[in-house]
Amino acid sequence: MVYQENRKMSEKPQQQSRRETPLPEMHSAELAHALSRLDLTERLEEFGRLPKDQALSAFQYLDPVVQEELLDHLPPETFSPLLNAMDPDDRARLLERLPEEQRSRLLQMLDRREQEMTSLLLTFEEESAGRIMTPEFLHLTSTMTAEAGLAEVRRRGRFAETIYTLPVVDQARRPVGMLELKDLVLAETQQTIGDLMNPNFQTVKVDDDQETVARMIQSRDVLAAPVVDSAGRLVGLVTVDDAMDVLDLEEDEDLALFGATLPLGRSYFSASVFHVARSRVVWLLVLTVAATLTVTVLSAFQDTLESIIGLALFIPLLIGTGGNAGAQSATTVVRALAVSDIQFQDFLRVIFRETRTGIFLGGMLGLLSLLPVWFLMGRDLAVIVSLTLVAVCCLATLVGSAMPIIASRLSLDPAVVSAPFVTTIVDALGLLIYFLIAQRVLAL
Amino acid sequence: MVYQENRKMSEKPQQQSRRETPLPEMHSAELAHALSRLDLTERLEEFGRLPKDQALSAFQYLDPVVQEELLDHLPPETFSPLLNAMDPDDRARLLERLPEEQRSRLLQMLDRREQEMTSLLLTFEEESAGRIMTPEFLHLTSTMTAEAGLAEVRRRGRFAETIYTLPVVDQARRPVGMLELKDLVLAETQQTIGDLMNPNFQTVKVDDDQETVARMIQSRDVLAAPVVDSAGRLVGLVTVDDAMDVLDLEEDEDLALFGATLPLGRSYFSASVFHVARSRVVWLLVLTVAATLTVTVLSAFQDTLESIIGLALFIPLLIGTGGNAGAQSATTVVRALAVSDIQFQDFLRVIFRETRTGIFLGGMLGLLSLLPVWFLMGRDLAVIVSLTLVAVCCLATLVGSAMPIIASRLSLDPAVVSAPFVTTIVDALGLLIYFLIAQRVLAL
Repeated sequence: MVYQENRKMSEKPQQQSRRETPLPEMHSAELAHALSRLDLTERLEEFGRLPKDQALSAFQYLDPVVQEELLDHLPPETFSPLLNAMDPDDRARLLERLPEEQRSRLLQMLDRREQEMTSLLLTFEEESAGRIMTPEFLHLTSTMTAEAGLAEVRRRGRFAETIYTLPVVDQARRPVGMLELKDLVLAETQQTIGDLMNPNFQTVKVDDDQETVARMIQSRDVLAAPVVDSAGRLVGLVTVDDAMDVLDLEEDEDLALFGATLPLGRSYFSASVFHVARSRVVWLLVLTVAATLTVTVLSAFQDTLESIIGLALFIPLLIGTGGNAGAQSATTVVRALAVSDIQFQDFLRVIFRETRTGIFLGGMLGLLSLLPVWFLMGRDLAVIVSLTLVAVCCLATLVGSAMPIIASRLSLDPAVVSAPFVTTIVDALGLLIYFLIAQRVLAL
Repeated sequence: MVYQENRKMSEKPQQQSRRETPLPEMHSAELAHALSRLDLTERLEEFGRLPKDQALSAFQYLDPVVQEELLDHLPPETFSPLLNAMDPDDRARLLERLPEEQRSRLLQMLDRREQEMTSLLLTFEEESAGRIMTPEFLHLTSTMTAEAGLAEVRRRGRFAETIYTLPVVDQARRPVGMLELKDLVLAETQQTIGDLMNPNFQTVKVDDDQETVARMIQSRDVLAAPVVDSAGRLVGLVTVDDAMDVLDLEEDEDLALFGATLPLGRSYFSASVFHVARSRVVWLLVLTVAATLTVTVLSAFQDTLESIIGLALFIPLLIGTGGNAGAQSATTVVRALAVSDIQFQDFLRVIFRETRTGIFLGGMLGLLSLLPVWFLMGRDLAVIVSLTLVAVCCLATLVGSAMPIIASRLSLDPAVVSAPFVTTIVDALGLLIYFLIAQRVLAL
């Protein structure tokens, strides 16, 4: 992405209030954000009014969906420079959204070099390291002196997206070390790059998942990660700003799944009500259909329910508590999986820990509810409710912890089977347990 | 934090399998991660076995809770160098956890300069920009030439945490521009810093929230943000790696709240079952107490329920669907608030959009369920269930979108009133609506 602003732009320095500043005086990032909040007509209008260099710069900060909409409504002579000015990885992210035909048409509009780089990125899988890397990097060799290295940086640095991480490669273009610009600048002129470089670096493969790369950059506190092809040759760098954006996207996706919806992928107000509804309808439908299980379970126990109507009063409370306990487990486990705290081989260890936690929590709730329910509804119901709380919490933590681990083993995103899904399953199982316990206790 | 590894460490280059590599050969970040998965006794043992320089480096990557535990069990002669080697911001994050007395004792162990810097950071609020900034930066003045600037960087660069962002200040130490090392290196020797610097930068205040700073760094794609005191004087820099960690922490917190639990703040296996249970017990208790509302509502309608037992069958399905629709709205709105897509003045606009979405989704579910329920349970129940689905979805989206916005207006974290909370409220209100509709339809 874009490390630095074009200094020539007519921006006002320092803090600006988003509301009072006219659009052309904002920083491009905030400008893009303000444009995203407008509806399509206003956005086209405001965008058309921007000075050309600022339009170029703001365009890069827009969400790909919004970029796509603008492209669809701008004349080719306007969007050709927009497209050429983008970084190759950002451009690939935009083009991957478009139908094949439009994509090749747009690729034709690019300068030859930009076209080559973008086509290269587009050969890699979506959401892979290859897609988000920049092929515009500068490499050194280990026999160079620091002086020669610095001279090389000065000569060719303008064409690289970053010069803060300088990969050092051998004759086969395989990386042998990473050099930070900092260390090059601070070095004595006659030291060799081989002495200065850090040989302890981690490479990623072009087809590694983008989240893996981003988490590696985050945990190692590096500014860029080298990407190699299947032969181990260096083909690009993933920079820290792209890593941040990836983690942000993944967070958006996880949070959305936790809330039983799909991520909007664009700013809230730029999405139509229809678009918002569409992002939710599938999950809502799936969960509602799954919830018909609860109707089945209740039908099976209709006689029990009819004889003791008091049982009905606790249905929402019991399944609600089960759902919450299950959501808690699922949330903890999904997070721990995301940061590799839990791996598949920990399956039994996790289940065992979670179930103990469930017994503990359910036991506490069961004890606390015993007396009030006894006082209000009699001993039988009190015993039934308390026992159900223990059993339901135990079951909920079991289901809530097992499902995400199984999902991740099946290469699904564990967040898919998180809170809402677990809750719906626990609802049906919880009812079953409730009535089985009730029949047992009442038959005494 | 730590930008680069100590090159002298006995690490093996490139990809290592976490399982098979002996601890001392791992990269410090992975080493810290492996240590976190052990229990306390094993951890102390393994940590004690590490070569000294590697122990120093791995220590910095550990979670503050785990660092604290290690400190509690290590002899002072071991942990004094650990403490001195930390970056001031990481050290502040560790010390803020400790009781006053222990904190001053540890501060005494530091070299004078480190002690001063750490004490300074500790004067700022927790989770503020001041706490996470580094006071070890290098500044330039605008009248310097590029040559002089580079010479200054070479002379004093070793003492700064980062030299990639070089703040340019006036005589009163107020920032007037930001210079990237990249531009300094690529400049002609006689250009002035004033010409090279970027005057369009954004400062943050020491008491600004850490998330605001982190989001700014992310959206502007900068490597560091300048922090100023109340008089506008430069006091430090927040670097991109710290911004990433802040966003990761905030994500952890949001996800946790979405799952009705508190973040563990440490790796899963390093937390005891008791610790895990404690992170969940408060929310589970609060939500269960809130759920007694559903018992109250059902008691009020016990007669209606008794006369048509079929009504009970749909209770879990209806409140489950309402809960899911509410969770969807809450999730979308919490996320949009976090990235400033929604502000308080958008309140009515959001509510209106969400409610329309709710009517649309509820209408669809109501239509789809009409015939099956009619066929299985008769016309009356079919009409009641369908109407309730529309009303509940509409209500759920209303509550789900309004509550996070109100919470954020009251300076609460909107995630606190997200999915689980909304679900519990919608459960009770949904039941009320269900029975009111039932009474109306059945009285016809």
